Amino acid sequence: MQFFFSSQYWEKAKFPFHVIPKLGALRIAGGTIKDYGCPGLSITGSAIAVAEVARVDASCSTFILVHSSLAMLTIALCGSEAQKQKYLPSLAQLQTVACWALTEPDYGSDASALKTTATKVEGGWILEGQKRWIGNSTFADVLVVFARNASTNQINGFIIKKDAPGLTVTKIENKIGLRIVQNGDIVMRKVFVPDEDRIAGVNSFQDTNKVLAVSRVMVAWQPIGISMGIYDMCHRYLMERKQFGAPLAAFQISQQKLVQMLGNIQAMILVGWRLCKLYESGKMTPGQASLGKSWITLRARETAALGRELLGGNGILADFLVAKAFCDLEPIYTYEGTYDINTLVTGREVTGFASFKPVAQRSRL
Amino acid sequence: MQFFFSSQYWEKAKFPFHVIPKLGALRIAGGTIKDYGCPGLSITGSAIAVAEVARVDASCSTFILVHSSLAMLTIALCGSEAQKQKYLPSLAQLQTVACWALTEPDYGSDASALKTTATKVEGGWILEGQKRWIGNSTFADVLVVFARNASTNQINGFIIKKDAPGLTVTKIENKIGLRIVQNGDIVMRKVFVPDEDRIAGVNSFQDTNKVLAVSRVMVAWQPIGISMGIYDMCHRYLMERKQFGAPLAAFQISQQKLVQMLGNIQAMILVGWRLCKLYESGKMTPGQASLGKSWITLRARETAALGRELLGGNGILADFLVAKAFCDLEPIYTYEGTYDINTLVTGREVTGFASFKPVAQRSRL
Amino acid sequence: MQFFFSSQYWEKAKFPFHVIPKLGALRIAGGTIKDYGCPGLSITGSAIAVAEVARVDASCSTFILVHSSLAMLTIALCGSEAQKQKYLPSLAQLQTVACWALTEPDYGSDASALKTTATKVEGGWILEGQKRWIGNSTFADVLVVFARNASTNQINGFIIKKDAPGLTVTKIENKIGLRIVQNGDIVMRKVFVPDEDRIAGVNSFQDTNKVLAVSRVMVAWQPIGISMGIYDMCHRYLMERKQFGAPLAAFQISQQKLVQMLGNIQAMILVGWRLCKLYESGKMTPGQASLGKSWITLRARETAALGRELLGGNGILADFLVAKAFCDLEPIYTYEGTYDINTLVTGREVTGFASFKPVAQRSRL
Amino acid sequence: MQFFFSSQYWEKAKFPFHVIPKLGALRIAGGTIKDYGCPGLSITGSAIAVAEVARVDASCSTFILVHSSLAMLTIALCGSEAQKQKYLPSLAQLQTVACWALTEPDYGSDASALKTTATKVEGGWILEGQKRWIGNSTFADVLVVFARNASTNQINGFIIKKDAPGLTVTKIENKIGLRIVQNGDIVMRKVFVPDEDRIAGVNSFQDTNKVLAVSRVMVAWQPIGISMGIYDMCHRYLMERKQFGAPLAAFQISQQKLVQMLGNIQAMILVGWRLCKLYESGKMTPGQASLGKSWITLRARETAALGRELLGGNGILADFLVAKAFCDLEPIYTYEGTYDINTLVTGREVTGFASFKPVAQRSRL
Repeated sequence: MQFFFSSQYWEKAKFPFHVIPKLGALRIAGGTIKDYGCPGLSITGSAIAVAEVARVDASCSTFILVHSSLAMLTIALCGSEAQKQKYLPSLAQLQTVACWALTEPDYGSDASALKTTATKVEGGWILEGQKRWIGNSTFADVLVVFARNASTNQINGFIIKKDAPGLTVTKIENKIGLRIVQNGDIVMRKVFVPDEDRIAGVNSFQDTNKVLAVSRVMVAWQPIGISMGIYDMCHRYLMERKQFGAPLAAFQISQQKLVQMLGNIQAMILVGWRLCKLYESGKMTPGQASLGKSWITLRARETAALGRELLGGNGILADFLVAKAFCDLEPIYTYEGTYDINTLVTGREVTGFASFKPVAQRSRL
Repeated sequence: MQFFFSSQYWEKAKFPFHVIPKLGALRIAGGTIKDYGCPGLSITGSAIAVAEVARVDASCSTFILVHSSLAMLTIALCGSEAQKQKYLPSLAQLQTVACWALTEPDYGSDASALKTTATKVEGGWILEGQKRWIGNSTFADVLVVFARNASTNQINGFIIKKDAPGLTVTKIENKIGLRIVQNGDIVMRKVFVPDEDRIAGVNSFQDTNKVLAVSRVMVAWQPIGISMGIYDMCHRYLMERKQFGAPLAAFQISQQKLVQMLGNIQAMILVGWRLCKLYESGKMTPGQASLGKSWITLRARETAALGRELLGGNGILADFLVAKAFCDLEPIYTYEGTYDINTLVTGREVTGFASFKPVAQRSRL
Repeated sequence: MQFFFSSQYWEKAKFPFHVIPKLGALRIAGGTIKDYGCPGLSITGSAIAVAEVARVDASCSTFILVHSSLAMLTIALCGSEAQKQKYLPSLAQLQTVACWALTEPDYGSDASALKTTATKVEGGWILEGQKRWIGNSTFADVLVVFARNASTNQINGFIIKKDAPGLTVTKIENKIGLRIVQNGDIVMRKVFVPDEDRIAGVNSFQDTNKVLAVSRVMVAWQPIGISMGIYDMCHRYLMERKQFGAPLAAFQISQQKLVQMLGNIQAMILVGWRLCKLYESGKMTPGQASLGKSWITLRARETAALGRELLGGNGILADFLVAKAFCDLEPIYTYEGTYDINTLVTGREVTGFASFKPVAQRSRL
Repeated sequence: MQFFFSSQYWEKAKFPFHVIPKLGALRIAGGTIKDYGCPGLSITGSAIAVAEVARVDASCSTFILVHSSLAMLTIALCGSEAQKQKYLPSLAQLQTVACWALTEPDYGSDASALKTTATKVEGGWILEGQKRWIGNSTFADVLVVFARNASTNQINGFIIKKDAPGLTVTKIENKIGLRIVQNGDIVMRKVFVPDEDRIAGVNSFQDTNKVLAVSRVMVAWQPIGISMGIYDMCHRYLMERKQFGAPLAAFQISQQKLVQMLGNIQAMILVGWRLCKLYESGKMTPGQASLGKSWITLRARETAALGRELLGGNGILADFLVAKAFCDLEPIYTYEGTYDINTLVTGREVTGFASFKPVAQRSRL
């Protein structure tokens, strides 16, 4: 995959819209979904595709992931036959773009506490509430949104169209990483959704888990791709750049860093691959997905920091890719469950104790 | 010190020129220089001032440091009486701004290998060459520039005025940190410098060491200030933000990170303070300065990463200060000697062996 | 201070009794205690003395610390005038040896939960219970023991003599560190303590805090001394040992490790020194003592691991000191509050939230 | 595999000779060797066997590894048919024990610089020189020894019998890890080796590489086994031990450590497994073997340190296995190429530059 665009888009925090058709031509949107114009890749194939995009630009991989492994997959797994036929084919070709709105302003790690409401009215539903951090939402044609059913108090899913009255999306500014990804703050004020756009298969928070299981595997492959891209650039830089009369590649300290990066990357790939195999055999538990995502991002962060060091002053310029990748990793370390939350999800699985919630008594000291 | 400006300047990589008079009013430019309108602070006082500015915004502290501890100090220590009287008073009030140009494109860590030449002509000198990474240079009124004397082959120093014919400065774009600092690529094509603007006290590379000794101490206090600012923000955030029904401050994992940050900061301050005391007593060796700078930046980087984690998703927005500080630390980790180079400078001092240069034989494997 | 003995004592986990008079001759037992034949050192002086002993052998420093900063200090701060006159002079000269028994088998970090009881009988008290990990206890002449007063339910203190009927002490075997220190499991079965040996000033758990405040400062200086000893040995080894035709001191990777160790040690000393100053001015809080101890041990552990690496194969032989020191650090990392507990003590102080206790609900997953 | 013996052997640094028949009965000695009474396992099978032994006791796994993957394999790969028939069958059943002597006192990492000489005389060879660190050598029946052929100056291999005149072996005392392994200092003074005991296939240092390739894979699996054993014990301990009224398994900090260990172990196993697959397909390069060994030991060391912390005070007693394993890992981190040397071996492979040797000029500073 070539460089589709300069670092200017990252610098300016703009989305390179001219890249969308090229990403569409890769035929990876839709990932593991079969039929409806989707590629029907294996999860391993889909994961490697995400990683290869991330190797060049992490933001582009997030763009696809949100569109494909969250939004499209929700429609594919939980939507009606009519919805699939209506939405998936054009999404698969990236003729239309989707986003996926779960997170709300006050609840990051505690995603189940969501407050957006969906109230049944004649012919449809009224959605009221806010969403935050929603990737692609500033320009998405199709928004998959989750809200609490005012009668059942359970989580339901809905498809909202771009121009729905009452819907406003404001771009989140001043991000240090994934600057090309357009995250939005969504406000829904009495947004009407017709009955046909309710996603019938989402009747509780548990129903999102099938989707999140896939997306967590995909997200775990982003840092793998990012780290490979960093390694590529560092290797080249060390071979070309000279100091004190010798290529940087000949210095003990530089070599050791490069090798430590290589060791991490090899291990990350194997852990990611194993996760795919577990998923494919139907055996992947939530704790395993969380462990894979958290462990891989931890090692990627270490790898990126080493790579940043190897480039010296040029390691702070987005032009050389490493600086950009170093920054792009930070949101990934945090989204789809922060490192800490993911370790506690796994911890709960291996110990049987949930430790998310502290006692939180004020000390008398 | 209040917030002088929004994170917009950082986001847009613009310099907040309206802040210059306010920074001038702090009366810290000129630092340890006595007379000529300079504050004549102790080095400890000057260092703490730098740290307090960095606590709010690291770029502003770099702006002052380049102006004061590099450019002004060179004039104060190596300039003629006439030069001091001419330049220092207005620089001390930040009515004029200075920069300091040593680094060149091909030589980062090996600063002594510089190629810019100064050739004696009637009434002055002709400077020819390039400089890179020069902070403040895109708008500085006064440029302190180092060049190799074409006759003696030794390093000499010169003062160039902003509008000197043959001088062009191009802003370096796409930085991930210290985005407010305007670093420039300088090209000098037959730039004439009159005899009166040669800095008489700079006759070899060694003569820059007096200046670099002070600036390295100052630079060591930037990460201290940055880390304090990060701690302030994290503490406040943990007390205010709730998840799972309790303030983040009540979670074991969050508390431990905060305490690890606090331990680092306390140690960093003490190491920085000790460095000032050594300097004041005339005993600070180059190895000690390098050790102070490298050790403090290492711990600051660890501290910033922990702080970044504590803010979760908000840790990637420059608005919350931590993300900005996290990025600003990266160039500081690298400038004034990368972490690795500084450890080898100290290593040479404690072992007697210079290990900068590798054997660099191509392996036959 | 010379090497008093070979590494054979460490290897065999035996105490070098012939060293006791030599340690006594150093005139450091009794530390900060004034009069009663004690040296009356400043806390800084006492701390440096502990560090210098630890620099040679950590076990010896623990021997003195338990004897002096725990047992003697309890008598000095909480004992009667008669007890001070009776016990302190011979303890100060190390003609008799003391130990200090607080910890019990089931409660490590939660020291306040102790179960040993003291029941008032005519002319004295009957002590019943168990203690664990008590350093020096296998041969101590004087045992300072804490028990729960059966009437008040508060913690009281007692002095037990070596041969008290009902008292048995079993040496704890198979330790990997501080192998020279003789830790004992104490069992008290109806041990009678006469009224005159009750320590009148200990009437609650809080009363032990004055003692623990000092001992925590002292303990913080052990890893400083250990790290200095490791650095000494590594520096010498790197200068003397050759590989590939050059002294190890000339290798980049070795130099960088040595310098990282040096930076840590310098910072550790400053943090330890600051703790002494805070103590001396009466301002040291529990959180600061915990922070000092935990932060210093963390850095010491990193330093010891680096030193261990620098010695290669010889780094696993106790003869070369580094291996021994590496192992000796492990119990210190854990005693007087584990690293984790100490960070939470500080965390409680800076946040106001006690997070020691988890909710501990079994997950339904 | 059960515990064959108490921690007393480790404590006393004695070898549990009664375990040899039990280890023999496992039918793993001889590993991948086919015929001659050897099990003919796949390298993956052989590696897993080593790991499972190390999971219980690392010293036992080193005992087998030296005997099987170094000594027996040298005979199998480089010995004559007669030698194979003579030695392998009884070695395979552990009726006799072998060791493998390459390393010499002055050269650890630079193994090719060996000085032991082999001089041709009538009917055989005279060996003269010293070996150091040789595992099993104090009681081995058969010693595979490498020496420099006095005529060709190339490395040759020899088999020496236990009671050969002129051969003395002294046990190396005071080790902190693998205390059950009996390492010896070997002195050979005019030791005569008959022609039939020269290993004909070893005619240069390169000829040992076939053996070292296998042993490096095997050594990489030791830290995997050790880490699994540590995890087992920690998990059990956290579930059983209570503090502050709750099992340690319910504490956030403890859970996070346990999960970090689990993530490391999963990755280590996959990296080890991949190494076996590369070996089996004939594609494993020296750099890959070095990377596998160094990366796995690095992560194992991190894992062991976390495990050590989780056990608190009991983490320093060999009885609880974790402390013992923590110490046993240290020699493994260093033998078969230290961590640093292995990273430079890989570094040479990926950059083409050998950086082992420094310039080593004395600084004039």
